[in-house]
Amino acid sequence: MNLRLNKRVSVLCLAMLPLISNSYADDVVQPITIAKQGSFTVGGTVITAPGEFNPKKPFTPEGQTLHGDHLYASYQIPLEPKKYPIVMWHGFGQFSKTWGETPDGREGFKTLFLRDNYSVYLIDQPRRGAAAKGTEGTTIAPKPDEQFWFGQFRVGIYPDYFDGVQFPKDEASLNQYFRQMVPDTGPFNVELMSDSVSELFNKIGDGILFTHSHSGGLGWSAVMKNPHIKSVVSFEPGSNFVFPEGEVPEPMPSSFDTLKGVPVPLDDFMALTRIPIVIYYGDNIPAQPTDVPTQDAWRVRLAMAKVWQETVNRHGGDVTLVHLPEIGVKGNTHFPFSDLNNKEILKLVEDFLTSKKLN
Amino acid sequence: MNLRLNKRVSVLCLAMLPLISNSYADDVVQPITIAKQGSFTVGGTVITAPGEFNPKKPFTPEGQTLHGDHLYASYQIPLEPKKYPIVMWHGFGQFSKTWGETPDGREGFKTLFLRDNYSVYLIDQPRRGAAAKGTEGTTIAPKPDEQFWFGQFRVGIYPDYFDGVQFPKDEASLNQYFRQMVPDTGPFNVELMSDSVSELFNKIGDGILFTHSHSGGLGWSAVMKNPHIKSVVSFEPGSNFVFPEGEVPEPMPSSFDTLKGVPVPLDDFMALTRIPIVIYYGDNIPAQPTDVPTQDAWRVRLAMAKVWQETVNRHGGDVTLVHLPEIGVKGNTHFPFSDLNNKEILKLVEDFLTSKKLN
Repeated sequence: MNLRLNKRVSVLCLAMLPLISNSYADDVVQPITIAKQGSFTVGGTVITAPGEFNPKKPFTPEGQTLHGDHLYASYQIPLEPKKYPIVMWHGFGQFSKTWGETPDGREGFKTLFLRDNYSVYLIDQPRRGAAAKGTEGTTIAPKPDEQFWFGQFRVGIYPDYFDGVQFPKDEASLNQYFRQMVPDTGPFNVELMSDSVSELFNKIGDGILFTHSHSGGLGWSAVMKNPHIKSVVSFEPGSNFVFPEGEVPEPMPSSFDTLKGVPVPLDDFMALTRIPIVIYYGDNIPAQPTDVPTQDAWRVRLAMAKVWQETVNRHGGDVTLVHLPEIGVKGNTHFPFSDLNNKEILKLVEDFLTSKKLN
Repeated sequence: MNLRLNKRVSVLCLAMLPLISNSYADDVVQPITIAKQGSFTVGGTVITAPGEFNPKKPFTPEGQTLHGDHLYASYQIPLEPKKYPIVMWHGFGQFSKTWGETPDGREGFKTLFLRDNYSVYLIDQPRRGAAAKGTEGTTIAPKPDEQFWFGQFRVGIYPDYFDGVQFPKDEASLNQYFRQMVPDTGPFNVELMSDSVSELFNKIGDGILFTHSHSGGLGWSAVMKNPHIKSVVSFEPGSNFVFPEGEVPEPMPSSFDTLKGVPVPLDDFMALTRIPIVIYYGDNIPAQPTDVPTQDAWRVRLAMAKVWQETVNRHGGDVTLVHLPEIGVKGNTHFPFSDLNNKEILKLVEDFLTSKKLN
């Protein structure tokens, strides 16, 4: 009773703010009120060394344990959350920062969706970032490769930015952008990743999954494991497109790699036909083959996504594929959710969720 | 003008909540209102491979860069922030999670201080967690060692919990606790760490530094580099106690290691005498030598801290050392800020800050 009253008063107060301050400049940031925030790990394994632990010899592994390979989630819950929380899963070489503050310091999808009253969970997948404690280990050998990523993330073809690209061109922003990557601290494993995300949904219940790039394909795996995932919003899925056995398309060669579909049993695949899915690709994806690998990579990925959409929908699915420049939204990179026009992208996603009665 | 009005209304509304709901149970969490949140990196280096980048051969390092060795900071700013923000720096094997949600899911110092209207910045130090992108690399070889940490963090002597320890005894909490560690992704470097924290203070201006364990000693280095650090609250500093050249105490042997003071020029040392500093140690630290290394480690660390306090104060400093059980606060582990009684610890710290006119 008190809780209810409390909530109502607070919501009333917040609702007053725009009325009082309707001359507020767009760039003045409104306060954010949240009911709860925190973080936790889910999933993972435990290794135990043989022998018996001796507190007088604590530096030897005998009888000691190692907890690792979990997923790390941080969350914020608004005062009056919408029905479905959103789980945001980063891509290759990235971590939760992907969805946080943008390289030029604007709010990313984490805070923008929170402002629109979605509960938001950000993932660091196993063996990366805040979930770096793994059971297998690896060797990290840093290699200068950022001009590759500048191209692969479709900011431009280094040192040139694409004309009209929705990415800030100051040096400080590019510095932040390059620094938002982190290395893997153990071997990559599709099942480990999708299992851990499935466990997260077991913990939080029904929700919407946002994926990006590498997690796009991992996200399809998670959907096949867990019916709590009620929708997927996938930005530029880059690998692991799954198809029913016998329906895998021909491999698609490019100057980057040869992209192959991944066969799965039809029964598993059908899970992907039972929820609304939307896929967004940005701009500056060539239609014809090119010998610039970071360009050609996206030509075949977009092509594969179109085959994938057609395949899921042919089996009764509901996949929407939006190639942003085709609807007049120009200049987006591989990170539409943090690009300069990310509020325009936000609106597209919210309209999709509304159209599917997911909000 | 609008901003002001807006703030006032919002603060007024929030101020109403306790009045309306004064029968609210203590464990019902009140909403949190923040003006701004985000994250960024500071500091670090850039390596450039020789040669010229060729977009048609993006997989070779020629002419490519690598940004690394930065610090990662995430922050939350309340509506009416106190004068000094608090920067919270984790200890060995830990990352920003140290200050976040506790292993049993209660609010940690991050959110508790935010609720008390401090701006809070959480650090991931270079080559760890969200700042894992380094320029040097390493080999990560996971080793079962958690029974060691159970002792070293003074939860108990595995498998026994200390009597009355302020740590939850359920399995789920211990699971979360073990999983909040992460490996280093590159070599450790005192100067790199303290330089990056100094750069953070250059960016945000005057503030208060909280340190824990390993970052205790690194914090002294940061203070010697940057006068923006106006106070240090240090939980169980564990290494790198700095002394003026010629005043370094005798090494202190224990069954864990031999703890040595670190000589620095007197001029540098004097920076530590110009700000109020408080140090807290928890419970279950033996007074006499013991052959349990995880116990004996803390005997000499507490002893060294007392010599350090005496040395700084003899040079005109203002160091307070609080051994919690001596003031009747019992059962604290190596993590007083996330222990079961962390709100009691919070009160102690806030009283200290008030007494030094830092709030």
